[in-house]
Amino acid sequence: MPELRKDPLIGRWVIIATERVRRPVDFLTTQDDSSVSEDCPFCEGHEALTPKEISAIRSENDLTARPGWKVRVVPSIMPLLRIEGKLNRRAKGMYDLMDGIGAHEIIVESPHHIANAAELPVEQFHWVLQSVVARMVDLERDSRFRYALWFKNYGSVAGAGRIAHVRSQIIATPVTPKRVKEELVGARRYFEEKERCLLCDLLIQERELGERIVMESAHMVVLCPFASRFPFEIWIFPKRHSCDFASIPSEEQKDLANVLKQVLLRLKSALNDPPYNYLLHTAPFRHHNGKVGHWKTIEADYHWHIELIPRLSRLAGFEWGSGFYINPTPPEESAKYLRELVIEPEITTSYA
Amino acid sequence: MPELRKDPLIGRWVIIATERVRRPVDFLTTQDDSSVSEDCPFCEGHEALTPKEISAIRSENDLTARPGWKVRVVPSIMPLLRIEGKLNRRAKGMYDLMDGIGAHEIIVESPHHIANAAELPVEQFHWVLQSVVARMVDLERDSRFRYALWFKNYGSVAGAGRIAHVRSQIIATPVTPKRVKEELVGARRYFEEKERCLLCDLLIQERELGERIVMESAHMVVLCPFASRFPFEIWIFPKRHSCDFASIPSEEQKDLANVLKQVLLRLKSALNDPPYNYLLHTAPFRHHNGKVGHWKTIEADYHWHIELIPRLSRLAGFEWGSGFYINPTPPEESAKYLRELVIEPEITTSYA
Repeated sequence: MPELRKDPLIGRWVIIATERVRRPVDFLTTQDDSSVSEDCPFCEGHEALTPKEISAIRSENDLTARPGWKVRVVPSIMPLLRIEGKLNRRAKGMYDLMDGIGAHEIIVESPHHIANAAELPVEQFHWVLQSVVARMVDLERDSRFRYALWFKNYGSVAGAGRIAHVRSQIIATPVTPKRVKEELVGARRYFEEKERCLLCDLLIQERELGERIVMESAHMVVLCPFASRFPFEIWIFPKRHSCDFASIPSEEQKDLANVLKQVLLRLKSALNDPPYNYLLHTAPFRHHNGKVGHWKTIEADYHWHIELIPRLSRLAGFEWGSGFYINPTPPEESAKYLRELVIEPEITTSYA
Repeated sequence: MPELRKDPLIGRWVIIATERVRRPVDFLTTQDDSSVSEDCPFCEGHEALTPKEISAIRSENDLTARPGWKVRVVPSIMPLLRIEGKLNRRAKGMYDLMDGIGAHEIIVESPHHIANAAELPVEQFHWVLQSVVARMVDLERDSRFRYALWFKNYGSVAGAGRIAHVRSQIIATPVTPKRVKEELVGARRYFEEKERCLLCDLLIQERELGERIVMESAHMVVLCPFASRFPFEIWIFPKRHSCDFASIPSEEQKDLANVLKQVLLRLKSALNDPPYNYLLHTAPFRHHNGKVGHWKTIEADYHWHIELIPRLSRLAGFEWGSGFYINPTPPEESAKYLRELVIEPEITTSYA
């Protein structure tokens, strides 16, 4: 059983993945980055190679594992957290730990063996967002979970693994991740003083200034944040205040699909198809009323967003151990470059 | 002028290194990992290739840039922070920033062109520690600085750069790094409840249990922490409670020199000379009496230590964006492996 262990000094939780233990010898082999496609478990027609489908978008929505789908959600075959069991939260001397309970699901973003999401038609993005929302709503029903993280790893440097089939992941966790908790605390502190949402204020200022804006759509703002940790770090915000990604209205969802595609195309064009990660930051589940979980206040003070990080540079020891980042590209330059890129007209018309 | 920018949401400071800006084209070139040695600025006899020496350990201690030294401290030729100027802390709309003022120094750990510190005689480690302490004491006199970070990057994956000459770095910063601040807050919270140091309690428990201990010496304990973020993560603690590395007594310094050498030898042997980073976590400077800087309470509740991270696995998006780490090697296994390694007797006798 994997374990969730809490660092007693700063309160960070770590998954000790006891079921896929790596020993010294495992770190000595060189990584095989080659992509397999003939036995890719995520390709249309290979449905039998995955565990039982959780959900899918297809013409008639049934759960038969058969071709004809647009987007498919399946359990990870190497789950970081296990779905069965109780949390069993307990002490071990002065330490805190619990069993590694959670959900780990793969969103297969296309039936075709395509690696880079930037090449998908914008409709696929919309189906992916629909699937993610549906999974989050479903996972929230499980009272053991406090949070669902939706994220994408693209490129082997970014942790995408051996199979180059476009996909993202959802991990539902029994604790709120530290970074999100810090954001909730920061947002609340600001709200207590100003009675306004920090990120709403930030968007007003950024749109007035313009220098860090990458693009705007009807419902979304894309920018390189003022204190960007990484070159070409990109955040995507809804203009309308909302703490909860899962309640995104249909027109915003369509707009976000378009924006995501545009952002990935610009990134690909600007940096020659770089590896990247993106991750959704949204409110913890409503039913969780712990220290950071008072839904009414989170509704007022938190603002969901997507953080995207191209994996261009290596982190050195200074940054690991200090939490103090060094960014060699001012976000104003990153934003200007991405903003002024000329992207072929094809992509701007693709969603009706 | 580089800038220090504060993230408004979670309070993290980022160095925007405006003087070595990297643009998209810079990220496309492949890295040259080859080591130069004939024109290595850190080798004995090449003293004229570095900026003016800050300090050195040599038979007669003068500042003439000439051969005959054991350890040499020089300014970085690509400083992340600049030594000249005022902090000029200010607002920019809703954001906080200040000029990138600080010190960035290189500790050249041997006159010889050796890459791996594990191969140095233990006396060199002692001279390095002496040099670090002296630099920290000196940097504390500068009222602009709140903290000095001593760290080492070994191997190009760990950010060591192009020249493979053994060295470490000190960066003095006008803010306390976020990770250290979090530790100070965690340590204080524990002390307020128990009136004991959290890390002293942790050491008692770990030494009783033994399963995560790598080694013990007269004055030091080396262990793999309970909530290790990484395989073979190693922390080194003094047994005696002390918040301040710079006040380390001479006998502890000698003992630590021996322990550092042993740890690096074990690491090299266990993982086939892996890249790694280590970083000292010690109290902020005494004169800083800000939110986390009350020296009297820090003296009671904080405990300096060194955190070492072998760079064996890549971080994926999940970990970046969530602060939630996945460690595939339980620390008990890492510790057992390192503890039971047989190291040749040579190294245990090298310091008198």
